Parts: sequence; C-alpha cells; structure tokens
Amino acid sequence: MIQIAIMGLGTVGTGVAKVLSENARQIERKLGEPLQVKSILVRHFRDGAYRQLMTDDFARIESDPDIRVVVETIGGVEAAYEYTRRALEAGKHVVTANKQLVAERGCELLELARKKNVRYLFEASVGGGIPILHPLRECMAANRIDEVYGILNGTTNYILTRMVRTGAFFSDALREAQAKGYAEADPTADVMGIDAGRKICILADMAFGRQVDPAVVPMEGISKLSLRDVKIAGRAGYRIKLLGRAVRLPGGGRTAYVAPHLIPEEQPIANVEDVFNAVVVRGNATGEVMFYGKGAGELPTASACVADVMECLQSGPRQGGVSWSADTAGFEDPLELHTRWYFRIEGSLTDAALAFGQVEVLSEDGETAFLTDRISGQEARQQAETLNVLACMRVLG
Amino acid sequence: MIQIAIMGLGTVGTGVAKVLSENARQIERKLGEPLQVKSILVRHFRDGAYRQLMTDDFARIESDPDIRVVVETIGGVEAAYEYTRRALEAGKHVVTANKQLVAERGCELLELARKKNVRYLFEASVGGGIPILHPLRECMAANRIDEVYGILNGTTNYILTRMVRTGAFFSDALREAQAKGYAEADPTADVMGIDAGRKICILADMAFGRQVDPAVVPMEGISKLSLRDVKIAGRAGYRIKLLGRAVRLPGGGRTAYVAPHLIPEEQPIANVEDVFNAVVVRGNATGEVMFYGKGAGELPTASACVADVMECLQSGPRQGGVSWSADTAGFEDPLELHTRWYFRIEGSLTDAALAFGQVEVLSEDGETAFLTDRISGQEARQQAETLNVLACMRVLG
Repeated sequence: MIQIAIMGLGTVGTGVAKVLSENARQIERKLGEPLQVKSILVRHFRDGAYRQLMTDDFARIESDPDIRVVVETIGGVEAAYEYTRRALEAGKHVVTANKQLVAERGCELLELARKKNVRYLFEASVGGGIPILHPLRECMAANRIDEVYGILNGTTNYILTRMVRTGAFFSDALREAQAKGYAEADPTADVMGIDAGRKICILADMAFGRQVDPAVVPMEGISKLSLRDVKIAGRAGYRIKLLGRAVRLPGGGRTAYVAPHLIPEEQPIANVEDVFNAVVVRGNATGEVMFYGKGAGELPTASACVADVMECLQSGPRQGGVSWSADTAGFEDPLELHTRWYFRIEGSLTDAALAFGQVEVLSEDGETAFLTDRISGQEARQQAETLNVLACMRVLG
Repeated sequence: MIQIAIMGLGTVGTGVAKVLSENARQIERKLGEPLQVKSILVRHFRDGAYRQLMTDDFARIESDPDIRVVVETIGGVEAAYEYTRRALEAGKHVVTANKQLVAERGCELLELARKKNVRYLFEASVGGGIPILHPLRECMAANRIDEVYGILNGTTNYILTRMVRTGAFFSDALREAQAKGYAEADPTADVMGIDAGRKICILADMAFGRQVDPAVVPMEGISKLSLRDVKIAGRAGYRIKLLGRAVRLPGGGRTAYVAPHLIPEEQPIANVEDVFNAVVVRGNATGEVMFYGKGAGELPTASACVADVMECLQSGPRQGGVSWSADTAGFEDPLELHTRWYFRIEGSLTDAALAFGQVEVLSEDGETAFLTDRISGQEARQQAETLNVLACMRVLG
C-alpha cells in the first residue's frame, strides 16, 4: 500500500481523488500495490466523500512518514510554494499542475528536489492531460530543440473558434464561454495571455535548459482582436490563433512571447478548435511533432498528475533528471525574431508599398490589409512608423 | 565515455551515427559524459565514414564489456532476433526500430530483458520520430486505455493524399510515391497494410497489456481502393485514410485490425496529409490525445533510437517496466466492433433501404453510395448479403 496526500480540493484535487478510485485496478496492476490517498489538505472543512481524509494542518502531512508523494493543487504562489518547499525538504516527492509556481519558482524547487533525492514533476502544468513535457524531455532528448509553440489556452481558443465560425464579436464570444463554464468570471489571466505565458515559459525552460523569467516575456492576449481581421484572414486562407512561442535565435540567443498569429489553414495546428490545445515541438533531427488534446478539465489534468505520481514511485533516482539553469542570460526581445507580418492600415496600397516595398495584398476595402516579407519586429515597427496602423500580427511559418 | 554498438548500417543505422555526432553536445550535456559508437555490425565491409568501426563478427560486440547498449537496425526477424537475444543475455540494453521483431517476439524479448535487469526499448518502431509508446505507457499510465488508432504508414497516406488532391488513380499515385522515394520498389508491406498492422499490434500490446499476434489481425490495405469512393466521400465531407485500430470491446475483449476508413473532415486526423503519421489514444480520464509528425525518415527515426539509448543509460532499473502478458486470450474478431458503414452498391436506394432500413444517402449516380447506422461487422455482412456490393468501408466515430 502506497500512501499519498493531496493539497487543495478544487477541480484538479478532486479529479486526482476520482482518478485514483475509478482507475484503481489499472494503477495497482502497474505499481504492483494499491495507491491510496491518506490526507487531503483543505482550508475549510466541508462535508462530502473525502470528509474523513481532510486536514487543515500541513504539519501533519509534512511529518507523516507514510506519505511518499504530495500532489499540490492549491494554485498560486504563496502557500503552494511554502508547502512544496517543506514537502521536498521532508523527503517527499511533489507533483503539481500549478503553472504559475513552476514558471516562477520551478528552477529553485527542482534544485531542492535534486538535493533531497526526490522528484518534482509537473506534466499537468502545460497542456492538461496532453503528454508534452515528458516527451519533450525524454523522447526528443537526442534533438537540439529549435522551437516550441502552441495553442496553450483553451478559453481563448474557444472564443477565437466562435469568432471565426459564427462571426461573433470578442465580447459576445467571451460571454458565451463564461456561460458554458469555459471562462472564469474574471477572465483576465486567460484573455490577456498570462496563462499561456506561464506555460510557454515552462516549455522554454525545458526546451532550452535555461530559466525564462515570466516577467520579461511579452504577453499579448486576444481582447483587442478585431472581427475584421478574423474575417480578412479567413478569406485569405489563414486562421487567427493565440500562440505561445519560444524560439532559438540564429545568433544563439532565445526568445519567448505570447501573441495572436495568422496561421495558414493547411497547417494542422490551424485546425485545432474549441477548447482543445496543441503544442508543436521542432527538433533538429525529428522535425516538427505535434501533441493535441484537451488542455484542461478535471479528469485530463488529474490523470496527468496521477501519472506523475506513478513515475515518482516507479523510477529510481534518474541521472540528469529534469532541471534547467537559473542563469537567464541570452534571453532576447522577441522583436529580434524575423517573420512575415500582417498589417491592416487606414491607408492605400500605395502607402503600404511606400513603407514596406513589395507586399501581398489581402484586402483593399476602405482600409488596406497586407502581408510583408520576413522582417524583424524592429524593422516592422520602423517601416510602419508613418502608417496609420489599425492592426498588426505575426504570421506563422 | 559511454560506448554503444549499432547493428546494421542502412537508413536508420546511418541516421543513429549521424544524430550521435551532430547532436553530441546536447547529448553529452544531458548524460554528463560523451556517447560514442564503438562498433558497427555489417554483413559486408564498405568504404566510408564509419569504415574503422565496422565488424562482421557479432561475437566481438557480444563479448565487449565496454559496450553497454546495442542499437539493432538490421530489420526482419531471423538475425535481428538472434543478436538481440544474445545481446540481452550478455547484459546489454537493446534499442530497436524493428517493428516486425517487436510485434512478433517483443513479449519474449522484454521478459528476457527483465530477467537480465536491462532494457529493451523500441519507441522508433511506431511513428518514427513521433513520441508515442513512451507517452502511452507513462504519461497516460493513470488511464484505462479504451482505444488506439492511427495513420501508421506514410507511404499509403501519401498515395491517398494524391488520390484526394489530384484525382490520381491508386496505380499512378503509387508510381509517383516510388519516384519520390516514399515507396519501395516492392511496396507490398506498405500498400497491403502489413506495416501498419505490425505497428497496431505493438500499440495494442502496450495499451491492453496482452500479446496480440500479428497473424490473427486482419490487415486490409489500399490497393483495391477505388477513386470513385474517394470522390464520393470527399463530396460528403469525409476523407479516406488507412487506419490501424485497436479497441477495447464493451464485453471486456479487445480487437485490432487495419483497414481504410471514412473520417469526418472536421476531425484533426482527417487532415493528416502526405507522409505524415498520427496516432490517437483514447483514455478514460484523458479523453482523446493525438500525436503527430513524420512517421519515418532517417533522422526522425534515428533520434527516437538515440533517445531510447539515453533512457537506458539514465534511468535506474524501473519497477514494472514495459511488458505485456504472453496470454493472447480475449482477442476477438473485429467483426464484433460496432461502427457506421459506407457501402457503394450496384443497385438503387430501395435496394439499400430493404437491406439496411434507414440509410444516409451519399450519392445516387448509376450506383448508390450510403452510410448505415452503427452495426457490427457480422450484421453489415449479413444485411448486405443480397446486395451487389462494389465497396464497403467502416466510418470512424
């Protein structure tokens, strides 16, 4: 009998308890013995199925030698950080879905885990139930990873899908997402790109082996996205998606950001709709691989946590386990990255051509929408200086 | 310095040597020491970059205590089986891309590896460079896996893509694939579904934990696929793809087969084109996740082998490593599986309705093409008995 603790009993915490009981037989067959929740840390006791497992005293978990793994589903940084640190110090493995904590303090917590010869795993923090961190780190270990990008937030992808399919305005699509339970009452972290930003930081940390500080990563959401651009892009064969993107630059530096992009509709990631997520990893040997599935939700996220718990228990101490350098040197402004750009201007094709030379016109309907050649963000900004820019986005590929 | 051997110097073997030298720095950083090829087993010596590493005597590899991992890229069963067995007996880890050997003798070789406390890994045998076996086994470990299906053969997917896009006949598309080097001079294993069949057996073994004997898995290729069906399906919003499929049946049994399917075009896997592969795994907690990328090719496949080599070296002996039961009980005929069916008959809608009751008509152009309700393969066969059937395929979903 293996015993674990869950901290926090929200959506993911409850899901972990459910997966452990619903799939108990599968899990026991793989581990060779049953896996059981001994304690659940809550702030306030409440009645229900798990009443007799609840405690509001972390010290009881910390000092319980029977508890080998702690699943942290508290969220946020303060309490989650404090308890994670103490659990690792106490020699317990810690598993989490907490992307904010991993993005901000992951490097330090991994180092602590290494010292204490336990593991700190967080597959569920990116892409919910989609296997991505594990394959990135292990299956693609023989690659130099040159780029990672993805649709990392289901709420904004749902809103964009509604805008494209039904011609809904952002505001209406957001209300619809809230009514369906896909967006929270305060949707800021989702629609401003902050949630996707934390996830791309974690992916960049793992892909490039150096800490990327979320505070320096430009995060642009979809709240200012105009339906006009969605329609112009659609007619020209592009879908607009919010991408988190981390790129190894030709000069050896690396960059990361979150922003809406135009994506050619024949690319598989352009067809990732509704609340689904997808992550593309480009390795120098493997080429592009894509991982697709439900990026959130109680059971998918919980099942990723439980798989990490099983990983802690099954694998011996790994040489060269997950870690990245705390050194943030080499991080460059995403303006360094060369791409094609989409512009919509209050002005004519002549204005566009005078500013950018040759452009590809998408629409000339009172305003002018066009695509530039591949140029850096600085160049795009400079050359557009004299234009009345109504919208500006990168093009993927 | 860690030393390994490669057996066979074809496409994949050469790729392994290339990845090891091109990405030497990445690999050394992760392993903590350099990884080097000490010997390459060949049948005939030939000049070139690896001349001084070549040997035609397996006993030299077998008895060399410096060699910790052997990468088997010989292919086929006889010699590959013999050398794999002896390498494992000699206490060496073995890594392979050889799907035929894993599908036919994997269970036995895994058992031998377990006894000798070494590992037998074969991520590259399914999906080339796409991480799939590892995530299926580890990241989805907390799920009961209910289904695995996928586009597992790039050659046939290329041919189907040409038939859909340019209206080419199968025979012309095959010649085009051969001219481009995507199909071999003898394309039998690809176009008859045998290659995909070996891969779905391996996926089924891992998903369900019991050996599936390739000899009992019905494998239907695309050589008899008519361009008429491709066109009728396309106009009705479906793409035809060759799928390998392994399903847990409601009664507790399991089945597996390879056959062309109609797939609704809004499903992501319907849009997997050209030589790309994709595998969908459905878990009872995670829901459907999809893995997509290049399913073949020198460097993608080789990088998966090298990642497995690194996995052997990094991870301690795992409790409950990869394995499945040799017991084949519970395998049922895929005719047990209920799906919708596509039929094209020499006959009228009245003929179709008399045989199947209500049907969905796709085309009535001299012949009649229609979809049935969800019925088993036996029912489909029985009810179609009086019809003049020109084509018959399952519909996915």
